[in-house]
Amino acid sequence: MPFAKERTIRFSDCDPAGIVFYPQYFVMFNALVEDWIDALDIGYRTLIVERRVGLPTVHLKADFRAISRMGDRVTLSLDVDRVGSRSITLHLSCDGADGPRMTMQQVLVTTSLDTHHAIEIPADLRDAIARHNH
Amino acid sequence: MPFAKERTIRFSDCDPAGIVFYPQYFVMFNALVEDWIDALDIGYRTLIVERRVGLPTVHLKADFRAISRMGDRVTLSLDVDRVGSRSITLHLSCDGADGPRMTMQQVLVTTSLDTHHAIEIPADLRDAIARHNH
Amino acid sequence: MPFAKERTIRFSDCDPAGIVFYPQYFVMFNALVEDWIDALDIGYRTLIVERRVGLPTVHLKADFRAISRMGDRVTLSLDVDRVGSRSITLHLSCDGADGPRMTMQQVLVTTSLDTHHAIEIPADLRDAIARHNH
Amino acid sequence: MPFAKERTIRFSDCDPAGIVFYPQYFVMFNALVEDWIDALDIGYRTLIVERRVGLPTVHLKADFRAISRMGDRVTLSLDVDRVGSRSITLHLSCDGADGPRMTMQQVLVTTSLDTHHAIEIPADLRDAIARHNH
Repeated sequence: MPFAKERTIRFSDCDPAGIVFYPQYFVMFNALVEDWIDALDIGYRTLIVERRVGLPTVHLKADFRAISRMGDRVTLSLDVDRVGSRSITLHLSCDGADGPRMTMQQVLVTTSLDTHHAIEIPADLRDAIARHNH
Repeated sequence: MPFAKERTIRFSDCDPAGIVFYPQYFVMFNALVEDWIDALDIGYRTLIVERRVGLPTVHLKADFRAISRMGDRVTLSLDVDRVGSRSITLHLSCDGADGPRMTMQQVLVTTSLDTHHAIEIPADLRDAIARHNH
Repeated sequence: MPFAKERTIRFSDCDPAGIVFYPQYFVMFNALVEDWIDALDIGYRTLIVERRVGLPTVHLKADFRAISRMGDRVTLSLDVDRVGSRSITLHLSCDGADGPRMTMQQVLVTTSLDTHHAIEIPADLRDAIARHNH
Repeated sequence: MPFAKERTIRFSDCDPAGIVFYPQYFVMFNALVEDWIDALDIGYRTLIVERRVGLPTVHLKADFRAISRMGDRVTLSLDVDRVGSRSITLHLSCDGADGPRMTMQQVLVTTSLDTHHAIEIPADLRDAIARHNH
């Protein structure tokens, strides 16, 4: 079952064409990943600030299928596609009442925020993902 | 009683100093004003998109009292200070568990989005503010 | 020869990890596309505002190869990969002194900003791309 | 003589009303302050990253006088109003061909990025400001 949250499209998400400025989808999904890490009981802030583990994106592939307008109510959802030794592949989707607006595959790596080099996924994060991903 | 909403400080709200990048406070407050207009049963999207009434800022005065960090839970609140014929003066505050982080006085004017000139505050918006402002 | 511009990585482009927050690459590339349309003598503002032709993204694929830090001087460059009847495929790259930071393939479609439906690429834009793309 | 830079208003600076989303003025001015610190031969990146000196805003007062539209060419300028022991008061202005769009008074304090507490303005920064401010 995907991890999902609802959100309203804001004035500040939209461009002069009156629709979501596409980089904002990535900002919205970043917040969803934060909420997901919190829901896994790892704590996004703890992970980043105290444990100095980063989750930068190394690859993404996105399809923009329909426009979103200011005031639209959308559902953002996240599924884990694959967990490697140092990377997590997510499938993300933004859906309106009428169907998908934008879908994305995103590969995150776990890094040390001191060196910015990839590190093994911390064991507790790996276990939490495995537990929630049945 | 102020109109208030809670919010989590996001990774994307913060700067390399690890604290809220100050223009993000204005983005957060903009979302609060949207929610307030919705709560007044006017509908922000209807006002902007269908009725073509804008709410640009003409003046603001802000005090940054304490830093907010990623993951902080804050309360954003809004009070109406004054309603003129074409302007609304708001008092806005962002508070953490420990007290105020940022406060602001903001003067909005109602404009026609076709001409960008100031117009009288629409009667239904004026009435709704008066009703909720007792 | 690619169309290219230099840019400094700003404080506001960076996240609490001290490196570019990845959605900002898309914001930077959007500005590059604006400059490119201007350099083609079409005029981005004229295209969007007066002619009401939009250039939304329908697909993108991005690889983040190395981090960019605040103050870094980077070169953003754009090549046209393919021009269809209603779509333009761009190859974009952000390079630092030491090599590529991020590369992206992006498919834009030309749309009517009144209907948000795809339209044929305007003839003058098509011709200008062909002329500059030898 | 004020420190000044020209800039084009970008698609990404504008909102569904087709004009600059007001928090973007603060983002633009932040970049101007970066350029100013660089022009003072202090180096913004060095100051923030290596010397760990922050320049957060503690107070600002802004007047929005006229709208700016996508594609507008504007001049951003900065004057030093006052230098205290731990604070710098700036006067900032964004002007179009037709006159002022937005003006702001902003009080920055110098802080330690380790404690986020105010510190004395570093001597070399104070001297550089004094030298350039004749």
